[in-house]
Amino acid sequence: MSPRRSETRERMIASAVALLREYGASATSIDRVLAHSGAPRGSVYHHFPRGRAQLIDEAVAFAGDVISGMIEAAARADDPLEAIDAFFALWRDRLVDSEFRAGCPIVAVAVETNHDAPQLARSAAEVFGRWKGALAGMFLRNGLSEERSRRLAAFIIAAVEGSVIMCRAEQSITPLEAAAEEIHDLLSRALRP
Amino acid sequence: MSPRRSETRERMIASAVALLREYGASATSIDRVLAHSGAPRGSVYHHFPRGRAQLIDEAVAFAGDVISGMIEAAARADDPLEAIDAFFALWRDRLVDSEFRAGCPIVAVAVETNHDAPQLARSAAEVFGRWKGALAGMFLRNGLSEERSRRLAAFIIAAVEGSVIMCRAEQSITPLEAAAEEIHDLLSRALRP
Repeated sequence: MSPRRSETRERMIASAVALLREYGASATSIDRVLAHSGAPRGSVYHHFPRGRAQLIDEAVAFAGDVISGMIEAAARADDPLEAIDAFFALWRDRLVDSEFRAGCPIVAVAVETNHDAPQLARSAAEVFGRWKGALAGMFLRNGLSEERSRRLAAFIIAAVEGSVIMCRAEQSITPLEAAAEEIHDLLSRALRP
Repeated sequence: MSPRRSETRERMIASAVALLREYGASATSIDRVLAHSGAPRGSVYHHFPRGRAQLIDEAVAFAGDVISGMIEAAARADDPLEAIDAFFALWRDRLVDSEFRAGCPIVAVAVETNHDAPQLARSAAEVFGRWKGALAGMFLRNGLSEERSRRLAAFIIAAVEGSVIMCRAEQSITPLEAAAEEIHDLLSRALRP
């Protein structure tokens, strides 16, 4: 693939992520991705032979990887409290920077999957699984049991995702801050030797 | 309004709620509501003069009221732990009964609001506000500070909503159970005199 073509492909994926975050999955049509990215129509089936489903699938994987990378980097520092605070801060910045317009692209796909290919639900589940794995591994290395580590990992991701949705609806950062504070206290207690 | 007409109206709202839960907001079109409810096309502008936006708005209010009623009834019993366990059990049943197809209609609207009238985000926020008010009132009556009561109320709703989304994506009840267990333990500690 020529550098030029590969750049178009990446731009289309980035546009799909941006549209998913702001408008949801059903609203992320090929037409809107083309308008947003400025890519020529011919590039759709050239870069995404399976069409819209493939484009959204790759957008989910790409967005999932970006956030996984951040979680994994924070987890490597091995200060779980700091890592979780950083995870909340990441979402806080995304909400505030977008004036509460942009949410999580993985949630957008997970909420509307029945309307799309069932593959999309599986892709969203894979992303959640990778995030959970990174958090659970960090808790395990910090002395929590395997069961508690897995439970806390799922719980923290659920609390973040749920509060991001509430923040968007309420146009306020309060729900995310409530979750960040409760989770911080809970984790301090759980990790106390 | 004749009983017959009022019944059509209610059936359309119930259909909109069912479609929101399963397919999301963008996918809940007038055509699908008519097909699902069996209502004649003429009833749309008769019962909902502002069209689709009004229908979805009323579906959000209706679904929000049903769940508010359950929260308020559980909260009146004034055993906060039991009330919260019942709130989780309600979502557990909805997920399992629908084979993980049906989520929260309020979340569906909140996630896709930019695509619709801004009124819908406000309606979703109002519903979250009412749920939070009922839970916070119960915590306050059980000795928690006003600040902690409000924080816990927002946090619990966020954890429920986020884990329902993860359960649907993963086709598994595990994320909801993780949240239910962590919240139960956290509440027991918070309420201990």
